[in-house]
Amino acid sequence: MARINDNFLKLPGSYLFSEIQKRTGAFLAKNPGAELLYLGVGDVSEPLPPTVIRALRDAVDEMGTKQGFHGYGPEYGYPFLLDAISENEYRALGIDIGSDEIVICDGAKSDAGNIQEIFSADSVIAVTDPVYPVYVDSNVMAGRTGVFSGGRWSELIYLPMVRENDYTPQLPEKRPDLIYLCSPNNPTGAAMKKRDLKIWVDYALENDAVILYDAAYKAFISSDACHSIYEVEGARRCAIEFGSFSKTAGFTGTRCSWTVVPKDILGKDASGDAVPLLDLWRRRQATKFNGTPYIVQKAAMAIYTEQGKNEVKALVSHYMANARRIRETMDALGVRCSGGVDAPYIWFPVPGGNSWAFFDRLLGECQVVGTPGAGFGPSGEGYFRLTAFGTPEATREACARIQKVL
Amino acid sequence: MARINDNFLKLPGSYLFSEIQKRTGAFLAKNPGAELLYLGVGDVSEPLPPTVIRALRDAVDEMGTKQGFHGYGPEYGYPFLLDAISENEYRALGIDIGSDEIVICDGAKSDAGNIQEIFSADSVIAVTDPVYPVYVDSNVMAGRTGVFSGGRWSELIYLPMVRENDYTPQLPEKRPDLIYLCSPNNPTGAAMKKRDLKIWVDYALENDAVILYDAAYKAFISSDACHSIYEVEGARRCAIEFGSFSKTAGFTGTRCSWTVVPKDILGKDASGDAVPLLDLWRRRQATKFNGTPYIVQKAAMAIYTEQGKNEVKALVSHYMANARRIRETMDALGVRCSGGVDAPYIWFPVPGGNSWAFFDRLLGECQVVGTPGAGFGPSGEGYFRLTAFGTPEATREACARIQKVL
Repeated sequence: MARINDNFLKLPGSYLFSEIQKRTGAFLAKNPGAELLYLGVGDVSEPLPPTVIRALRDAVDEMGTKQGFHGYGPEYGYPFLLDAISENEYRALGIDIGSDEIVICDGAKSDAGNIQEIFSADSVIAVTDPVYPVYVDSNVMAGRTGVFSGGRWSELIYLPMVRENDYTPQLPEKRPDLIYLCSPNNPTGAAMKKRDLKIWVDYALENDAVILYDAAYKAFISSDACHSIYEVEGARRCAIEFGSFSKTAGFTGTRCSWTVVPKDILGKDASGDAVPLLDLWRRRQATKFNGTPYIVQKAAMAIYTEQGKNEVKALVSHYMANARRIRETMDALGVRCSGGVDAPYIWFPVPGGNSWAFFDRLLGECQVVGTPGAGFGPSGEGYFRLTAFGTPEATREACARIQKVL
Repeated sequence: MARINDNFLKLPGSYLFSEIQKRTGAFLAKNPGAELLYLGVGDVSEPLPPTVIRALRDAVDEMGTKQGFHGYGPEYGYPFLLDAISENEYRALGIDIGSDEIVICDGAKSDAGNIQEIFSADSVIAVTDPVYPVYVDSNVMAGRTGVFSGGRWSELIYLPMVRENDYTPQLPEKRPDLIYLCSPNNPTGAAMKKRDLKIWVDYALENDAVILYDAAYKAFISSDACHSIYEVEGARRCAIEFGSFSKTAGFTGTRCSWTVVPKDILGKDASGDAVPLLDLWRRRQATKFNGTPYIVQKAAMAIYTEQGKNEVKALVSHYMANARRIRETMDALGVRCSGGVDAPYIWFPVPGGNSWAFFDRLLGECQVVGTPGAGFGPSGEGYFRLTAFGTPEATREACARIQKVL
């Protein structure tokens, strides 16, 4: 037998959503016919916007003709989409990010999972806690996190985001090489303002660290929180940013994302020489990936037309009305929650402090499926996540049930 | 500055197809208006088959409706496609590969590039030579190949495929952990028969090695060569197989592939305990990938309808008619070539033995762009690849020019 990558075996066996599925399945087996309301997984429920559907249809028609057929695309994405992202996501905000600093991929999950490959195997990793599990698991597989014991990785730096610090990560005591930040945050729903982000950018520049900034939820921002880390002076020299169409335009099952690696951001090799990280990321993608489908890139571009933008705005408003309703329910119950203003997630401390016990209670008493905070890291214990991606009907009904029971 | 993965810097700077592009661009700059014929890159020229286009249209329409919308899909692919692959690619040949041993991905390049992640960092790698560069480069990035000097990686086992051994790899002297085989082969076009493959399966079983078998071109087989390594007894215990829709059905810009990891194939961990490789690959994909678009999986399934199968057969015949023409041209010139029978590639020794010099000559004298064998590894030097993916007109004209000049 060939030797395996032993780091894979360090991963705790059961993944958050599998466990949720297991418990939900067991409940349904005991209570056949129970009408469950799902405010758990962060998947959308609305169809693709009409402008996107039209663009997909046109692109499909092209692919059926000799003149319009597209085979292998440009390695880092089609210029039409790169230009649209540069223009609309950055230059429109006064941020200087060029098309040639962007790489198109098939999802922020892939990008956030793969980016660590361009860094040294002994890099020290810091993650906010609670955290989107992919940042951690991809580093576990690469052997950077030590051993898992008592719910914690021995070599990982945890940056707690809890009620006591208003869900804002504080600078670590020990210096990390790579810092994963996500804003608006999954799962807390909190979004960082410029003054908060500036603290991190300054810290990264002073400490030769790289910030891996996940902005997948930025379309949901309604406050004055940052839409991009590049709004902060100096971020071009220390931050990589991930963007996604998954939640914005309902692309969870259509798959398109982008990663920004500014030309100014450098790493150093074994001899201490500077190497542009953009070159490394491009090489990684050109070797282990072969591009996002042409039809999907055309569909993503359509989001940036006038009509596409309006449809995305309407989608965001649609989900954020759900978020508002959940927040209001929590307010009425006297539960102080985070999120729901700049993100489609509502996060709150649970009575009793045991998030899986609260999961079981919500399932048993309200037939509502949410996500226990413990699944997102040690500081997630004691909290719970509800998402605004359900239908208005399901959200309304879930809120009514919760209000009656809690 | 954060420390980078130094292995990336070991990769030779210029990639094969970039260099081709550079030389072609320079020629065009000097000879404006020259009509170049491209028989180089392995991209297809025919549009997607009508059945695929219809399936795409239907799936796009679904995605625009509330009832038909699909968000995140099943982690390893939709059952409809997994079942169709199991049935048509394996069970129809009498091979027992279940749907639950298949994982859908977005391209054989991604799969062949990523598969090494589940193996130990000190695995010894063997590749056929010449070779599809992705097998090598992904292992370079993972630090398994030593240093590059004189066109060779110090820690890589090369298995030459040259005219003298009829392009059939011979067993290595030193034992590898992982063996990359590709049949029908890119770039030589040679395909392995059952008796050849049996030698490798027996060797892998005796030596605790794993065969990574790339079958991306199997639809082009017209001889009695193997369509799947699992035709060989014992392969379920030692081989992982990659399949692709890229060349078969023109999916190079649409992106869909699959990987087979039989349940019987085990690796061992640090303590010597057995671990099913399927579990590791599933975990890798569930963490660092988020599925192939729903619409693309629906399109791939359509290939297995009666009409879809006929259209794919017609596509294959179309390209293989080009292959035949190129072979006939070479025969007429007295050049003994490989390929063109079971694969859309024609591979032959060049006069003078310098493949880049021959590239320049073909470009200069015939305005035909091919691929120099040196780009595929040390044993590729002295050879040249032409592909059958061009239009019949371009192929005919290229053959006429070559016949006149060589």
